[in-house]
Amino acid sequence: MTIPEDVKLLEDERIDDLQRCGLMIIQNTKKFCFGIDAVLLSSFANAKKGEKLIDLGTGTGIIPIIMQAKTQGSHFTGLEIQEEMADMAARSVRMNHQENVVKIVKGDIKEVKNLFTHESFDVVTSNPPYMNEDHGIRNPMLPKAIARHEILCSLEDVVSAAAYLLRAQGRFYMVHRPSRFSEIMETLIKYRLEPKRIKFVHPFVDKDANLVLIESVKGGGRFMKIEKPLIVYERPGVYMQEIYDIYGY
Amino acid sequence: MTIPEDVKLLEDERIDDLQRCGLMIIQNTKKFCFGIDAVLLSSFANAKKGEKLIDLGTGTGIIPIIMQAKTQGSHFTGLEIQEEMADMAARSVRMNHQENVVKIVKGDIKEVKNLFTHESFDVVTSNPPYMNEDHGIRNPMLPKAIARHEILCSLEDVVSAAAYLLRAQGRFYMVHRPSRFSEIMETLIKYRLEPKRIKFVHPFVDKDANLVLIESVKGGGRFMKIEKPLIVYERPGVYMQEIYDIYGY
Repeated sequence: MTIPEDVKLLEDERIDDLQRCGLMIIQNTKKFCFGIDAVLLSSFANAKKGEKLIDLGTGTGIIPIIMQAKTQGSHFTGLEIQEEMADMAARSVRMNHQENVVKIVKGDIKEVKNLFTHESFDVVTSNPPYMNEDHGIRNPMLPKAIARHEILCSLEDVVSAAAYLLRAQGRFYMVHRPSRFSEIMETLIKYRLEPKRIKFVHPFVDKDANLVLIESVKGGGRFMKIEKPLIVYERPGVYMQEIYDIYGY
Repeated sequence: MTIPEDVKLLEDERIDDLQRCGLMIIQNTKKFCFGIDAVLLSSFANAKKGEKLIDLGTGTGIIPIIMQAKTQGSHFTGLEIQEEMADMAARSVRMNHQENVVKIVKGDIKEVKNLFTHESFDVVTSNPPYMNEDHGIRNPMLPKAIARHEILCSLEDVVSAAAYLLRAQGRFYMVHRPSRFSEIMETLIKYRLEPKRIKFVHPFVDKDANLVLIESVKGGGRFMKIEKPLIVYERPGVYMQEIYDIYGY
């Protein structure tokens, strides 16, 4: 791919090849790099032809960048509160020549009512901060801490933003930790984002789940399904075939 | 085992060997036979030394009968609304010489407040009716219909009875259908039976779950875990080793 001349790298930034559709992404290894969670969420989520998608807390922009490439959705927005991360994500979008359909917005999840029209999206995705304990955070304003801990937004902030942004019957895709699963279910139900499809991710077939992928439907009915588990490793160091398929190798 | 002389079989009844600890159970094939659900719940549940357990909607009595044999609990009650089922379960208890520690009570889950003291149990188990649609029920008073459909009690009746019967920090073990999982979570949380440990049962490793086992703790904290999935079949007709282990072969 040709990298546009106006896309510059800052100190400690590097370009990573996403190994799919020729996509590249800028990351700063000293700040925050995307994890398997974002890749699995992009695989689990879907946008149909013509649909509008927004990713809450987009970080490097990896989710809207992948979703634009893999779906027939018409427009993709990534909302990111950290100025430097939003700038880096916007440069990745330009690098992939997606600037006409992927827009990175610098802003706060808690302020969506001032940023976007009510019920103006068909799909919301989010890979939010997982941790709600504040022990062990040395510097709460570091990008890694903000991405991992509920410093700038809580689970309820993310869910209520999704409920505001989605049209009726719109879909919310989230990845999170199973340890907070009962709180997640309670919060989704409270905001009428009815869980419809859940997939648990287990590092090995004989281990507890360490991630959960949830598709909720705004105002959906109660019938739901628990999909076949996603097992990451066949044995230490060797991925299961499904993971290779998701990563597109 | 010696079957006591006063234990008689009625028409269409037969004695089945539970293949564990020499336990036997009386079943009526024309009415209702226990399924894999009850066996998996008995394996998933636990009663510690000296604890008192009650099984809501005990049917054949299989759960208290197995739990008495496998745990160090001190007393086990099975509550069953159907007179004939309760009588059959009581005969199975006598047949297994468990009558000093397993008691079958004929009564209604909706009437537990008149039958038992508040917070008088350490453990509650239940394999309740799964279905809340009434289509396709030819005769709602047949034992099979009562065991499978929410005719005489709803999910909320079972959960509220468990919440009444359990002491603080007591444990509620239930098996149910994943299709109703969001309603189950909402109801458990409403009655402060906090889900702490969940195991999904998949018929094959690449199929959606068809059963869910849930351990809740009365007044428990929010941290929870999703255990490794229980896969039933290795290939058609051949159980996975874990299932053979549970059945005790």
